Amino acid sequence: MGTVTAPWNQLLLNALESNSHLKHSSYVQLATIGSNGRPSNRSVVFRGFHENSDNILINTDTRTRKIEELKHCPFAEICWYFTDSWEQFRINGRIDIIDGSNPDSEKLQVRTWGNIISPNCCKFHYVQIREKSWFASSPRSRLQYLGPYPGLPHLSEEPQETSVDPSAGPVSEFCLLVLDPEQVDYLNLKTNQRLMFTSTQSQIGERCWTSERINP
Amino acid sequence: MGTVTAPWNQLLLNALESNSHLKHSSYVQLATIGSNGRPSNRSVVFRGFHENSDNILINTDTRTRKIEELKHCPFAEICWYFTDSWEQFRINGRIDIIDGSNPDSEKLQVRTWGNIISPNCCKFHYVQIREKSWFASSPRSRLQYLGPYPGLPHLSEEPQETSVDPSAGPVSEFCLLVLDPEQVDYLNLKTNQRLMFTSTQSQIGERCWTSERINP
Repeated sequence: MGTVTAPWNQLLLNALESNSHLKHSSYVQLATIGSNGRPSNRSVVFRGFHENSDNILINTDTRTRKIEELKHCPFAEICWYFTDSWEQFRINGRIDIIDGSNPDSEKLQVRTWGNIISPNCCKFHYVQIREKSWFASSPRSRLQYLGPYPGLPHLSEEPQETSVDPSAGPVSEFCLLVLDPEQVDYLNLKTNQRLMFTSTQSQIGERCWTSERINP
Repeated sequence: MGTVTAPWNQLLLNALESNSHLKHSSYVQLATIGSNGRPSNRSVVFRGFHENSDNILINTDTRTRKIEELKHCPFAEICWYFTDSWEQFRINGRIDIIDGSNPDSEKLQVRTWGNIISPNCCKFHYVQIREKSWFASSPRSRLQYLGPYPGLPHLSEEPQETSVDPSAGPVSEFCLLVLDPEQVDYLNLKTNQRLMFTSTQSQIGERCWTSERINP
């Protein structure tokens, strides 16, 4: 995991800024590989970068099919098209699933209270981030995780939760996805410029990025 | 290949209609499986349905990576998010690649002139559709196919074609993708309604669709 921002990061921040008046500018399409070996593709919401890194945060429900798929094959590609600036980012990388079952969560609490934790100590740190993401979600979003099992037949008789204790921490269905980008393919349809950013990882886990202009 | 429109088709036509004021409403994200076994995802343009069917048409360049990927694994999932009506269609199916190398193209010409061709005679018919799609593209779009090899390093010295004979047929780089949907997952974020459309194919190639309301 890199702790210094990558060369494509500023392009993405600029695109987010210039498209920020559009609610859907944070919607991205996440492709994974289905258990049947076929591609799977759905919209998810970009929840920001993991602090001091290029790692992309996404909230989801542990009961959705993408979790099963990512456990089977952790690789994913995000396609992010900005409808106002006509820019596309194809972000390919590996996804970590941070759910409540993280065996280190107890250890973490002690470590957090004792302030021993380091930002590079990912798994420990992510448990905190999961909690932060939960509290950053709107009460309405949080309620979704208490709803009926996604993808199962809809039974209108099922009782629905109508509120969630605002001070309560994340429910077990709430889960954080952390995408660690390895390659970014950037295309600007206004200038017809395309840039390919490719990374390699050093033995101590630092990413080194190179970029090349390629034909669109 | 179905020749009667599927039950999800009207939902999609409605979404296209209610979002038609947005240029990007015809942009969809197409996920395939890369040669390295990882997911691949990019925006492509919906070019309409193949007449009298639910088959989705997409133009592309034979030199792009998706062609190599689809030859290796013909399955794909389109994620189509309509930013104004808040509707998402996840369309999963198999893709046929119709390029100029189709061995039946000569036969086709004779058959077309003789009017023997039937709309169900897919491969023959698609060669015609490829030609139709070519002529339906703008001169600027057609010019792209004469440009330098997509994805290769950009060399500004490369000579660029500046015009294309308007009456000339499709160049060999022009290629038509035909997606035959097998499953459609529809989600309406305004009503929170989600419908799953699943098809089975009869021995004579007719699709039979069932639909079910499922939890979002």
